[in-house]
Parts: sequence; structure tokens; C-alpha cells
Amino acid sequence: MKAFMLDKPSYQELLKNYQHLSQFTLLDLFTQDNNRALKYSLKVNGIHLDFSKNNITDKTVEYLVNLAHESSLIEHIQNMFNGCKINNTESRAVLHTALRAIDNLEDRTYLPENSVSDANLVARDLLGDEKKIIVDGKNVIPDIEHVLHKMHKFSSKVHTGEHAGYTGKMFTDLVNIGIGGSDLGPVLVCQALKPYRKGKLNIHFVSSVDGYQILDILSKLNPETTLFIVASKTFTTEETITNAYTARKWFLDNTYNNMEAIKLHFVAASTNTKSVTEFGINAADNMFQFWDFVGGRYSLWSAIGLSIILYIGFNNFKELLAGARAMDEHFLNTHELQNNMPVMLALLGVWYVNFYNYSTHVISPYNTRLTRFPAYIQQLEMESNGKSVDKSGNPISYKTCPVIWGDSGINGQHAYYQLLHQGTSIYPMDIILALSDKYSNKLHNQILQANAIAQAEAFMVGKTHAQAKAELIANGMDDAQADFLAKHKVFVGNRPSNMLILPEISPYYLGNLIALYEHKTFVQGVIWNINSFDQWGVELGKQLARTILADIISGKVSQHDGSTMQIINLCSCVQN
Amino acid sequence: MKAFMLDKPSYQELLKNYQHLSQFTLLDLFTQDNNRALKYSLKVNGIHLDFSKNNITDKTVEYLVNLAHESSLIEHIQNMFNGCKINNTESRAVLHTALRAIDNLEDRTYLPENSVSDANLVARDLLGDEKKIIVDGKNVIPDIEHVLHKMHKFSSKVHTGEHAGYTGKMFTDLVNIGIGGSDLGPVLVCQALKPYRKGKLNIHFVSSVDGYQILDILSKLNPETTLFIVASKTFTTEETITNAYTARKWFLDNTYNNMEAIKLHFVAASTNTKSVTEFGINAADNMFQFWDFVGGRYSLWSAIGLSIILYIGFNNFKELLAGARAMDEHFLNTHELQNNMPVMLALLGVWYVNFYNYSTHVISPYNTRLTRFPAYIQQLEMESNGKSVDKSGNPISYKTCPVIWGDSGINGQHAYYQLLHQGTSIYPMDIILALSDKYSNKLHNQILQANAIAQAEAFMVGKTHAQAKAELIANGMDDAQADFLAKHKVFVGNRPSNMLILPEISPYYLGNLIALYEHKTFVQGVIWNINSFDQWGVELGKQLARTILADIISGKVSQHDGSTMQIINLCSCVQN
Repeated sequence: MKAFMLDKPSYQELLKNYQHLSQFTLLDLFTQDNNRALKYSLKVNGIHLDFSKNNITDKTVEYLVNLAHESSLIEHIQNMFNGCKINNTESRAVLHTALRAIDNLEDRTYLPENSVSDANLVARDLLGDEKKIIVDGKNVIPDIEHVLHKMHKFSSKVHTGEHAGYTGKMFTDLVNIGIGGSDLGPVLVCQALKPYRKGKLNIHFVSSVDGYQILDILSKLNPETTLFIVASKTFTTEETITNAYTARKWFLDNTYNNMEAIKLHFVAASTNTKSVTEFGINAADNMFQFWDFVGGRYSLWSAIGLSIILYIGFNNFKELLAGARAMDEHFLNTHELQNNMPVMLALLGVWYVNFYNYSTHVISPYNTRLTRFPAYIQQLEMESNGKSVDKSGNPISYKTCPVIWGDSGINGQHAYYQLLHQGTSIYPMDIILALSDKYSNKLHNQILQANAIAQAEAFMVGKTHAQAKAELIANGMDDAQADFLAKHKVFVGNRPSNMLILPEISPYYLGNLIALYEHKTFVQGVIWNINSFDQWGVELGKQLARTILADIISGKVSQHDGSTMQIINLCSCVQN
Repeated sequence: MKAFMLDKPSYQELLKNYQHLSQFTLLDLFTQDNNRALKYSLKVNGIHLDFSKNNITDKTVEYLVNLAHESSLIEHIQNMFNGCKINNTESRAVLHTALRAIDNLEDRTYLPENSVSDANLVARDLLGDEKKIIVDGKNVIPDIEHVLHKMHKFSSKVHTGEHAGYTGKMFTDLVNIGIGGSDLGPVLVCQALKPYRKGKLNIHFVSSVDGYQILDILSKLNPETTLFIVASKTFTTEETITNAYTARKWFLDNTYNNMEAIKLHFVAASTNTKSVTEFGINAADNMFQFWDFVGGRYSLWSAIGLSIILYIGFNNFKELLAGARAMDEHFLNTHELQNNMPVMLALLGVWYVNFYNYSTHVISPYNTRLTRFPAYIQQLEMESNGKSVDKSGNPISYKTCPVIWGDSGINGQHAYYQLLHQGTSIYPMDIILALSDKYSNKLHNQILQANAIAQAEAFMVGKTHAQAKAELIANGMDDAQADFLAKHKVFVGNRPSNMLILPEISPYYLGNLIALYEHKTFVQGVIWNINSFDQWGVELGKQLARTILADIISGKVSQHDGSTMQIINLCSCVQN
């Protein structure tokens, strides 16, 4: 067992600090330090993080920052931004940050396709304002710019009706077919930014291979006015390709088998020209590429964002990129790590996982437009850091990623918050809130905010038996009854939470927020010494599913354990 | 600290058994016992549970069942069904089972309102087929029947157009305004049973107090054809009443202030006649009551189910009730507890929480129509059993409810399953699957099933370094590289899961499924000796929110900790 983190000098300091802190409640810490709220708050690009309601003191912050330095965090950050192949099991660079690195998109003369030659690069470089990120000897920026341009052009044509359906009608409905990272990012952003919608396209997401999902959606659509995006890097993702062919069949069945029309109604976010072309898509015009250095869970900034661009328009997408870029710059350039927001979020997470032994982390957004944010972060963190071996492949002896879960916070108050307040463990939480919302109204927003703030307060301050009993007696209950009931109304309190406050849920701030958690995830991977960018854990199930699918279809069950065979038999009998 | 569970003789036996079992993997157990899959499977009302992929042997099952008996489980079950006041902190009976106890609804002559007199009861009792459940000296069945009849009548009138909007047009849209139990149940059932829809009513759910949610929904609706259900037992739930008044204002603003029309367009699931009447609702005709013995998270079977009835029709709702009743009867009457499905699900959960110390439990439905099932179960279990004191109010010294979480299973495979396979802890899981789905199609359903089964297999069997390395070498990789990469492709395996297989997702089987988990929750509460039917943990946050809302509105911040004051100030500055 390799003990990377455990061998660091600061780890021992943190252990001692943890033991020391166990004598004090969070409220004690506020009493000991009047300046605590201000001191443990950060404001970055307008986003406010109050992390003062955590079990930390100045010493904790100091040691956590030391732990980061002892793990060479700054060097790791620079390596990522510079295009080093930090995804070491796949020999890949990790450059979602490059996808949003271009800060003067609107002013650039886009290069025509196939003109991204060295000569061009040199010429552009002479202009003096060119970003360069080199991977395998090649600057990746022009390719990124080219695809952005292609998406911009395509979306403009859809919005103006220049690219219309095969009968000349403008598209009314957009169906994004994708799963995992090709689904969660577009779902999150389109839901969060619905008020920023451009044009009148309705958007639908097909992700599951459960046929009801796609058949139900298709049953309401008109093939003349429906545009499909097939989002799969390899164009082999089983769920996505099965759904894509079901959509294609529906389209052909309803257009008198108009094969040519597929070219107008289907586009792809993919790199597999051959399969995309076989499907009937015009790869030259309507295949939008991305690269090995873009992982699925980091791909909404790439061609996977095409559905987002079609839904909210290219300018809003640019604002989203600008927000992420602003957070990138903060993350890359803030070397006083106690002021680096993603770093602090990450270190607090490590603190609770590896010292307090808390096994989950709750994401509680209070705006319904962020309802899918917990699901997005769940994939981001758990797929990135749900690992048990270090970068060299050695088993590690400490806990890594906790379970990330949550839902709309105000709904959670009426559901699972009971356990958060009075359950037998402690569940650290990020509460996310917008200061203003011009698409809501004042009273509603005030109630929403009051609830979010009150929950954080309640988690921390709790309520004693004496308080609960006094309240009951004041309401006229007799002593014995009050004494009994108050026992059930005790809140131990001392439960930590972060409060993240956005000025509003706009493209720019959403971009910041997502990038904030991307970098939090990266930092934790560095501290835990794991490769956050592979996902070998998804392979085995896929591999076994191929055999089992053949078993179910053929009715001849191959060798498995008794339980697996029994269940295959059950399914196979119904199918055959 | 009271040690209820820890004092039971079987607890010590289980501890020893746990230590003994740690020598064996799940695969070892299958090797040791060829009959394991069959033996650890139950079939109840058509629903198949395979729990053989758990770390258990016959001894484990025996001791777990003993633990249940030592906790007087059967007596507790009977007490619940008989209407004893088992919710001891609120002196209430717990009778969601009574809501579905009437098994010959269609044949009954419904009693006219206010005729539920003792004379009637006696008369009906003479007929010989009457169920009776007595609470405070009164049979509750006639009241339940009366409300069911009233809902049936109302829904029929809406479906035929006899009850229409104020301009005489039939309703096209139904808006359910409710939160927590008044939202999650209807959301789950309406989503799961969408193919069973009766008529053409579109349904919308407003739960959050975030104004954008309701304003966005209203912006697409026509007040002439929209029917609102306000679902709040007390008619004081802040989020729901704020939304209800916002809907009312929108309605009046768009109908030239037609106060009379409110009577046609708003109905309530509530018991507060006064507030419902003040709102403008015709309480006599359009208020649907329920009772103290129906908790919010057990209320979809009651008047809270009105939205369900309007959406899928009364006959399908009756099937839903019939399914739940069938599970009730199994649960109540199966005294050989190893054959009692809810009991076994519950005991396996206790096994993992209190012996294995696993802190979460995953719910993984593979049908998209069950996507909200995890959220429903999350409330059900966590609000019921997320408690730290026993029924007498004494702090308990063992863990109670774990975190319940999950999403559509096939989507999870592309998101958080990485951590489930290769993370540093173990996460027991219920995989839920339908054998057939006439609303999907064959290939899609086969792929879905193959994946669900393969995941359970993969969790259990894992993959060794040698296997992974051999596969890589067979694919042409050199030894050193294969050795390195294989380290990242190791799956430890030995991860438990339950497989629950429904014949299909129909009203009847869904009713069974929900009741299954309701009773699982009840059993765990009995083992942990807690009151599963109160929820004092939701009170403190609400109480503190009132003060903070006044602070935000007035801009005068009252005394709190420094962090809370800082955040209130931030919000207050924007508002004022």
C-alpha cells in the first residue's frame, strides 16, 4: 500500500489539529474569533464563498495549504494547463481549459477549414495576441477555434432558417442523443439557462437505452421540423447508437424513406468520420469534432456543447466559456492557495474525507434551474476520483472520493434534510444560492434565500434539550410531556456547510461555477495522487453485458454464477 | 445511550457471523452452495427478489430473523395495521395501509357525504364483508371510502367535461402545487405510469418556492383550461401557499379578476377548511381531506393522489391501491420472516449499516419511467429513519438510516458507477428491472436488461490483475505496459446487490413496489427502535427561516453568528 498523502509532514500536523479541534464546536470557533466570517470568505469573479462554518482554524488552513504544496499542486496545475500528458494511463493531455482559452473570439477572423497550416499559425502569431498550447508538437488552439467557428456557423444557419428541414420548414425541435458526459452537461446548462434561450427551439434529451424514453419523445415530434444531434466521441456508445438508429428508422418511416434528408436532420458530435458517414450524416459539414484531450465529463465546452449553442445561442455560449476561463485564470494564477477558491473547496473536502471520515458530500442548490447540478457534479467528482490505485497503479491506503449526492435544496428540506439534521452521521454540504433572479420574483426569492441561510445556521447552531423544552412549556405544555417531546426535538448541531453565492444564474456565472468544481476535482486528485482523467471502472460491466445480451437474445445461457444465470433465464424466457 | 439492538442475543451471533464471513468472498459463497440463487430468491405477487449476491449464509438469515423476532416485529406490524398510535411523539395512528384496504371498491355503493353515521356502519357491517379499522373509537374506513368516492366523482366530471373551466372549455392542463410528500409521490407515479394516461390532461408539478419554476410553467398555460390542485394538509406550507397565491394572482390577472372562477379552477388536498375557503376554493365540493394517520411521505394513496387520478384515471389508481394492498397482505401475513420480502430487504439493510458499517445505499432503477424512484425512496427512508433517539427519546448508540441515493441505473453506468466499482468503499445497491415493457421495444429492452444483470455480475465477480493483464497481452500489448495498465483495470469485486424484477411497470406492480419499500422502512424502524413517523428534524430550519426572512425584508439584521449575518447582509443589500 503506497502512502503518498500519509507520508507528508502536514498530514501529521493535520491529524493533531483534527484531534485538537474535536474539543470545540463550530459555535465555539465563532466565539473565539470575531473575524472568522470575513476571514474565511473568498470572492472570485463575483462569486462569494463563505467557508467559515467548517471545523477549521488558521492552523488547519495553513496545514491544508502545506499539504497542497507538499503534493506539488502548483506544478500539477501548470502541467495540466500546458498540455502535459497528465492522463498517464491513456497518455493524453487534459485540456478542457484550452476549449475556453480563446478570449477574443468575436474579433478573430475565423480561418476557413483546412487552412490551419503552420504558415497560418506563424502569421497569426506575429499579431502578438495568440494563445498557444502545444500537444505532440502541434498547437491545439486553431483546431478548437475552427470547431467553434463551425458550430457558430451551423447554429446561425439553423436560427435563421438557412439550414432547415427537408421540406424547407424551420426546425422546431432539437433532440440530443447522448449519455454520460454527452448528456449531463447539456442537460445542466440548458436547464439552468432556459431564460436565455435563443429562438424557439424546444430541446429534448435522449440518454437511456430504455426504448420508452425515445419513443415517447418521438411520438410528439414532426420529422419535418426535428433536428437530431448524435453525441458520441467514438460513435460506438451502445446506448447512444441504438437510440440514434431508432431515431433514424422513425425518421425514414415517416419521410417515405428519404435517405437524403438524413443529411439535413442528423448531425454528430464525434470523431469517427467513417461511422458517422455510414449513418448518413454529412461528415464534412455536420460532424463536429473534439479530441483525445477532452474527457467526456469535461466536454460541454467542446462540440458536445452544440445542443447548448443551438438552444441559447452562440453569444451566450461564449459567455459561458468566458466564465469558465475567468475561473481558470484565478485557479492558475492564485498561488497564495488559501485564496484560491477551487483549492480551498478541494482541501475542505479532503479534510472531511481523510480526517473526519465523512463518507458523503451533499450539493444543495436552492435555485430550481440548478436542479441537475448535483447530478453533474456527481459524475464529475465520482468518475474522476472514485479510484483505489495511485497514478502508478499501487493500491492506496486512504479514502478517496466520497459519494456526491443531492437535489434541489428547498425540496430536500421536505425530504432528506431530516437525516442531515438528526441522523447518526454528519454530512458536509455545499449550499448554492443566487443573490438575484430577474426571472423569479422578489418575495419568492427572499423566501428561498431565507431558507438556504436558515438551514446552514440550523446545521451549525442546533438546539439543546433545554431550549426545546422551554419552547414547549412556553406554548403551554406540561413539564413531563415537554421533557419527553423535547428529547425528540434536540438538534446536536455542529454540522458544517459551505455557502456559495452567485450574483445570478447567468451564462458567465454558471461557467465559473462549473469550472470551480472541475478544478476542485483536479486538486483532490493531486492530493490523493490519482489519475482523475481515466475511468477504467466503467469497462467491466460493458464487457460482461455483451455476453449476457447474446445469452438473452439466443436463449442459451453461458456460464455465470448461479444468480446471474437465474436472472438471465428469467429475462430470456420473456423475450423468446 | 440505550442499546436496544445491541442487547439482543442475536446481535452477538451476527457479530460473530460477520467476522466469520469476512474470510469468504461472495463468489466463495456461490461455490460453497450450489442452491444459493434459488434459496435466496423470493417471489411475491409476481415480483422477483434475488438477494443471493449478498454477504450472507443460512446462519446470517437465521440470526437476522431472530433479531426481528427479538424486536417483536410481528406484534409491531399488527399494531400498525390495527391502528395503534405507534407514532408516539404525535399520538397518532399510522394507517397508510388503511387507504388501500378496501378491496371491492367498484362494487360498493358509495355513501353520500355526511351519512357516515354509526347506523350506516352497523347496517353495512351486517353485510358481512366490511373492513373495520378503529381509531379513537371510530372506524376510519367509511371516511376513506367517502374521499375516494369524492375523488372518483370529481375526476370523472373533469374527464367528461362536466366540470370545465369558467368559459366552458375542458381542462387541458393540471398543475399540482405541493412539496415533499405532496410532490414526490405524484411525480413518481405520473412519470412511471405515463403510458396509462387517461384523457389528454398535461400535468405540471410546482414544488420549489423559486419563482422561476411556477412563472415558467404559467407562461405556457391558458387560464381558461388550467386546473390547479393545492396540496398541503395544513394549507400553511410556506412554499406551497406562496406558489398557490402566485398562481391565483396569475389566474385573476388573466381573467379580469374573476373571483368566482377560482371555484372552478382551484381545488385542494387539505384539511384546513377555513384557509381553503378563504383562498376561494369551494371546500364542500372541491376540498379533498385526509387525516392525522397519513404522513406526508405515505400520502400518495390519499387525497394527495388526486393529481394521479386525474392523470391516469380512477381505475388505474385502484390498480395501484390493489398492488399496495397485495404487498400489505404479504407483509402482514407472512410470519416466516425469511419469506417476507419487505422484512428481508430491511434486514439486509441493517446487516450492512450496523455490521459492515456501509454508510449509503444505492437505488438503481433501469427503466427511465422509474427515474424518480430513488428520490421517492430517499425521502421515504431518510425522513422516516434518519433519527438519533429511540422512541423514548434516549440517544442511541448505533447507526440508523444510511444515505439513500441513485438515479437511472443505465445513466449511472456512464457517471458514478466508476466509484461503485473502483472506489475505496463499498456501496450496497438495489437494481430494479422490468421483465417486459410493451411501451419500449425488444432490442432496447434486451440491452437494458443485459446491462443491469452485467453490472450486478461485475460488482460481484470483479477482475484480477492477472485477468486484466492477460486480456491486454492478448490484444498485443507488451508485458511491461500490460502489467502497468492492468493495475488500473483491477476490480476487487465482492460488492453486494439485490435484484428486484417486476413483470412490468404497471399500476399494480408499482403499487407493490412502493409498499415494499414502505414496509422495509417500517421494519428498520422497529429494529432500530425509533419512531419512523415523526420528522422533528425539519422544524428548526423553518423556525430560523422566519427570523431571517424578516431580516432580509427589513434590511435590519438581528443577532446571529458572524457568518449568517454576513450572508443575510449580502442578500438584504440586493433586495433593498
